[in-house]
Amino acid sequence: MKISALLTSAGINIGLCVLLLSLYSILRKQPGNVNVYFGRRLAQEHSRLRESFILERLVPSPSWIVKALQYKEEEILAIAGLDAVVFLRILVFSMRIFSIAAIVCIFGVLPLNYFGQEMHHGQIPSASLDVFTIGNVVERSKWLWVHCVALYIISCAACILLYLEYKSIARMRLFHINQSPPNPSHFTVLVRGIPKSTEVPLSDTVKNFFTKYHGSSYLSHQMVYKVGKVQKIMSGAKKACKKFGHLTDTVMDRRCRPAIYRCGLCGGSTTSFQLYQNEFEPNSEKTDRNNSNLIASEEECASAFVFFKTRYAAIVASQVLQTSNPMIWVTDLAPEPDDVYWSNLWLPYKQLWIRRIATLLASIVFMFLFLIPVTFVQGLSQLDQLQQRFPFLKGILKKTFVTQLVTGYLPSVILQLFLYTVPPMMMLFSALEGPMSHSLRKKSACLKVLYFTIWNVFFVNVLSGSVISQLNVISSPKEIPTQLARAVPRQATFFITYVLTSGWASLSSEVMQLFGLIWNFIRRYVLRIKKDPTASSVPSFPYHTEIPKVLLFGLLGFTCSILAPLILPFLLVYFFLGYVVYRNQIINVYCSRYETGGLMWPIVHNTTVFSLLLTQIIAVGVFGLKESPVSAIFTILLVIFTLLFNEYCRQRFHPLFKSYSAQDFIDKDREDEQSGRMEEIHQQLHSAYCQFSPHTGDRCHPETEGEGEEEGQCSTEVNDRNRSQDMKDGLSHPTLSGLPVAKLQRAVKSLSLIIALQNKSSTNV
Amino acid sequence: MKISALLTSAGINIGLCVLLLSLYSILRKQPGNVNVYFGRRLAQEHSRLRESFILERLVPSPSWIVKALQYKEEEILAIAGLDAVVFLRILVFSMRIFSIAAIVCIFGVLPLNYFGQEMHHGQIPSASLDVFTIGNVVERSKWLWVHCVALYIISCAACILLYLEYKSIARMRLFHINQSPPNPSHFTVLVRGIPKSTEVPLSDTVKNFFTKYHGSSYLSHQMVYKVGKVQKIMSGAKKACKKFGHLTDTVMDRRCRPAIYRCGLCGGSTTSFQLYQNEFEPNSEKTDRNNSNLIASEEECASAFVFFKTRYAAIVASQVLQTSNPMIWVTDLAPEPDDVYWSNLWLPYKQLWIRRIATLLASIVFMFLFLIPVTFVQGLSQLDQLQQRFPFLKGILKKTFVTQLVTGYLPSVILQLFLYTVPPMMMLFSALEGPMSHSLRKKSACLKVLYFTIWNVFFVNVLSGSVISQLNVISSPKEIPTQLARAVPRQATFFITYVLTSGWASLSSEVMQLFGLIWNFIRRYVLRIKKDPTASSVPSFPYHTEIPKVLLFGLLGFTCSILAPLILPFLLVYFFLGYVVYRNQIINVYCSRYETGGLMWPIVHNTTVFSLLLTQIIAVGVFGLKESPVSAIFTILLVIFTLLFNEYCRQRFHPLFKSYSAQDFIDKDREDEQSGRMEEIHQQLHSAYCQFSPHTGDRCHPETEGEGEEEGQCSTEVNDRNRSQDMKDGLSHPTLSGLPVAKLQRAVKSLSLIIALQNKSSTNV
Repeated sequence: MKISALLTSAGINIGLCVLLLSLYSILRKQPGNVNVYFGRRLAQEHSRLRESFILERLVPSPSWIVKALQYKEEEILAIAGLDAVVFLRILVFSMRIFSIAAIVCIFGVLPLNYFGQEMHHGQIPSASLDVFTIGNVVERSKWLWVHCVALYIISCAACILLYLEYKSIARMRLFHINQSPPNPSHFTVLVRGIPKSTEVPLSDTVKNFFTKYHGSSYLSHQMVYKVGKVQKIMSGAKKACKKFGHLTDTVMDRRCRPAIYRCGLCGGSTTSFQLYQNEFEPNSEKTDRNNSNLIASEEECASAFVFFKTRYAAIVASQVLQTSNPMIWVTDLAPEPDDVYWSNLWLPYKQLWIRRIATLLASIVFMFLFLIPVTFVQGLSQLDQLQQRFPFLKGILKKTFVTQLVTGYLPSVILQLFLYTVPPMMMLFSALEGPMSHSLRKKSACLKVLYFTIWNVFFVNVLSGSVISQLNVISSPKEIPTQLARAVPRQATFFITYVLTSGWASLSSEVMQLFGLIWNFIRRYVLRIKKDPTASSVPSFPYHTEIPKVLLFGLLGFTCSILAPLILPFLLVYFFLGYVVYRNQIINVYCSRYETGGLMWPIVHNTTVFSLLLTQIIAVGVFGLKESPVSAIFTILLVIFTLLFNEYCRQRFHPLFKSYSAQDFIDKDREDEQSGRMEEIHQQLHSAYCQFSPHTGDRCHPETEGEGEEEGQCSTEVNDRNRSQDMKDGLSHPTLSGLPVAKLQRAVKSLSLIIALQNKSSTNV
Repeated sequence: MKISALLTSAGINIGLCVLLLSLYSILRKQPGNVNVYFGRRLAQEHSRLRESFILERLVPSPSWIVKALQYKEEEILAIAGLDAVVFLRILVFSMRIFSIAAIVCIFGVLPLNYFGQEMHHGQIPSASLDVFTIGNVVERSKWLWVHCVALYIISCAACILLYLEYKSIARMRLFHINQSPPNPSHFTVLVRGIPKSTEVPLSDTVKNFFTKYHGSSYLSHQMVYKVGKVQKIMSGAKKACKKFGHLTDTVMDRRCRPAIYRCGLCGGSTTSFQLYQNEFEPNSEKTDRNNSNLIASEEECASAFVFFKTRYAAIVASQVLQTSNPMIWVTDLAPEPDDVYWSNLWLPYKQLWIRRIATLLASIVFMFLFLIPVTFVQGLSQLDQLQQRFPFLKGILKKTFVTQLVTGYLPSVILQLFLYTVPPMMMLFSALEGPMSHSLRKKSACLKVLYFTIWNVFFVNVLSGSVISQLNVISSPKEIPTQLARAVPRQATFFITYVLTSGWASLSSEVMQLFGLIWNFIRRYVLRIKKDPTASSVPSFPYHTEIPKVLLFGLLGFTCSILAPLILPFLLVYFFLGYVVYRNQIINVYCSRYETGGLMWPIVHNTTVFSLLLTQIIAVGVFGLKESPVSAIFTILLVIFTLLFNEYCRQRFHPLFKSYSAQDFIDKDREDEQSGRMEEIHQQLHSAYCQFSPHTGDRCHPETEGEGEEEGQCSTEVNDRNRSQDMKDGLSHPTLSGLPVAKLQRAVKSLSLIIALQNKSSTNV
């Protein structure tokens, strides 16, 4: 590929980007699209844009970029949580390190590569891209030390920046844990593998165990119910309830109060009804409990949430091996209420390790099956082979523009389309794995997508691209550095176009929200649904697709930096654009339902260190090929230094992302106890984890979907709080649908009691 | 190598073994060698053999074998602890699985190998050993399924036996933990990385931290002192003390009491001295504390033993992350008092991870440097090459017997001699690593020796033996099964002779205790030391050399089983003999100073599973070479099954070997509290960990030696108890040498006070 082809590709992409971004700046001003582009703000801030039609709405403007950049880190932290900030830090880190790399490599390495061989240099636009790679440097060149020094500068800068980021994110995480309002998940332990016995119901087993062994700190517990069966009962109960609900709404609100007043009028006090209810309550509660026990023994599964009086007690209970059988009474700190993956909780704990292995195998098989399209795509960039296979293409491919398009643009577009199927598949695998929370599922999917992308985009392209059908290379590790050293510079062209097409284009499509836009259009103008879909259709941020994407570009940047520095300016544009776009999306579009406290960072750190190591290993191979032993030895020292750095960070910071510190929790506990807030927190705990909430009618959270793109259905915290408060109020709530069985039954009984009383009093009158 | 050469080798070894064992049965009856052969019994049971000279003493007899086999498992458990029992279980497991393997392979596989090719079978003695290996089976033989079935039987039997062993050892471990008398290590947490401050002494920092955050369960603590400096002070103090000690012994006991009586006679009551002392005590204690603070600020290091009121509190404190900096306040459950590796405790915690990496690298370098002698040894078994290099050998090597000796015997003897240097080196590396206990050091050395042995004896021999100087094979993992499949049957000869020479001979030399014997002889007849060296010179069992040895033979057995089944009878003899010998040694010779509770078993389990997997992978290679795809596929299924089995065991049993269960500890705590034993346990805790004990004069435990063969200097539990009781009595103890500094200083002051009083009263009189 020549420079001109690259420029063609770049031109197409810049044009496309500008077009899409302008389109976005217009579309976002249309009131009809407000659901698509301001989902989070609609849902959380209830802010509405003005509806009036003005000309401004049709003129593209870059004001959204300015707005996105105006927000401070603290504001984003307040709006979207720590996870979003950590995600943005990845981009900041990338911008910083690749700015340094670009300066070093463009001014230091690029000229050396270009003049590396004594050859006739024609006009730059018609020069092959290979001239700019290290492949152009002659063997035993005396200038190779510059490459080595550049590598040293990049590696040291990366390590220093990584260390600073890890440190600041660890501090943010600690601050987040310590300064956030009381979090029910800090007081709660999720117990799995509760041993079943025929005599005692599971709930009592839990109670007995924890009163016996954690008596001083045990507060209460809440069983997890099997979703399938309860669902049926619920729907039946709900139907019955709706009638009563209707009654309450219409009869109670309008006539019930007068009825009580009438009671008062005919001699009874207004509290007489109260008294009656209180008298009947214990009885009804007893039968209630019997009933619910009958149901529970069938429906309860071997998992429960156990609440503790203090945070410290909860982490102790979650970290200590409970019994001498590690497969029963397995304790973990519970996920946040909105983060719980309810339908996975009733999976038997003993099954989980098999599921984990099975999904691992399935992912690996999927990864290798994907080789087929990738190999095809690579074929496109080698036109001779393609023409041999499909002779009818010969005519078309003779035109220069078509050739440039096919070699420079088509491969990565096709690859991109195939890659779109990967995240949903990986989310499905991760759901089958049985994680207990949505965030764990996303993290697992993120790792899978990451391995997948690095393997299929980087390694397979590099190895099979250079020598097609040569996949045997993985079977000889000693050859890998040399093979990579030969292949990476040759594949630099592909990677540059990949950055242009996949990188830039994906950002434009991200900001455009094409799917959301079309769906919104269909909703509004075809299905004629006018309702604001605030709380139900705002997606959560797709970390599992975006983090691997950014990290992959980081990997490409590091590995190509000294070998083919031409990639760096394009990458920098990607990262800057990404920073603006993701900021905008986080502020306006996506909604964070739960908070992992920056748990993604260790993945980012490890991947970056891996990229560095890979770069260094490739450099060793290159210096070997170029017969520069001194540089090779210095690079090996750098590998060792990087490994030591990684180990230090693992020792110093990683434990903070695995566990909470006793000191912090004890201090927080004491603070709450002294301020008397503890009682209130304990009260809130009981209603924090509701398996069957009135939210979507059926379930609290969408659990059955497997793709996860639309996983995060947003509900604001304020709404949640109101809801749980409402639930405590019980009868006075206008819509009863979705309350737990016991409450519903009680409600039904109380209602029939009221009606009976009304009848009685009216007959008395 | 032919069968006759093998028989020569076997003959030599059987002769040697019989000779040595007979010699042993005589030597053990000589009263002069009682220190060598009955060290443990002398030290622990104080039993003495009769000294009279009778003829019986010169007649070899196998009675010791009968005696060794008579002991029951419970008795061995009582005598030598769980670790010894676990070690013997390795041998029992090996005997069982290789009995099954021998039956299956000798009757099923061996005839198939022998008649695998249509060839002329001469007399068996002159047949080449290769005829008995799978190399003799023709390609695409229809009988290869027998090999596959045999592999299935062996793998399944091994998995079942492994599971049963793991289960029973886990049960034994739990029983050991639950039923043993109160163990101070269960109440104690070793804290490292205590942050230093210029204002507060370290001891106070510890006290403040634990009173603040673990106040309800914190009992007390004990700082660790730097050994080098305190040593000097101690020796100085001891010299001064000895004089006072002498005074106390002679003056106090004989004259002090009369002096007090005299006081009583001249008007004062007998309690007047008591009162005086009490009056002075607070003062002296205060100055004491100031003094010791002065010393302590210099000598204390950032580690301490912290004692808790209950076992549960101790495991909680040891498992929870203490602060938000994981490098400070690092807590681990303390090792047993006799197991503490004092000189490592004052290493800064931050240094440990570097030390660990450095020793890892050093071990790897050592492992590869060792290739040089191994390659030389392998050269010996290929005589042509040897004759080319050393032409003068041609004359000697023409004799058949010499050739047989050189090919069949010499290589493994030389290898053996080189291997003797490995365990001391690995112990040295493990000591430098900075483990906190002797048992951890031994475990780490055990792992290192294990990897070393498997790599250098198995892989290097197999790979470089078949195609000398071809070490590149490790760089192409895909080729490994095929390479191994080609090489292992060819190297079977070497492995059989290795079993004969290294295995059998090492058992004979183990039982003979040649070094001990010679050293004892020198002591008695040259140095003329007659003293019973009971408590000081009885070694502890060298698990770090013996476990890798046994596991290596297991690996050889598994990998050769279906390929060259002739090895199995020789191995079985090794395991039976080993069972008798090690039993005898554990009962009579070695002493167990500390108890890890079977922590070695996971290593054994993992290594055995590794051996199984290696066997199966080699079998896949063999079936590939023999073009039997069905068998290969079935073997791959077996590999997956074995991996799943291992994962299950890891899930089910491994946590028990990493931590203690809360349930058991809480139950034990309650039991002790209800029986009122807790107070007594708390009392004992204070004196349990003594860094400077009166034992060897200088230190409790020999810490400076690097070899570890003579690491375990035995002291009986009874003695220990007496000692610590004695220490509490303080002044009345006849030998003061070795008390902690503070106590000694207090003793010195009290004594000078007494003397001053005496002088006063005598002048008064």
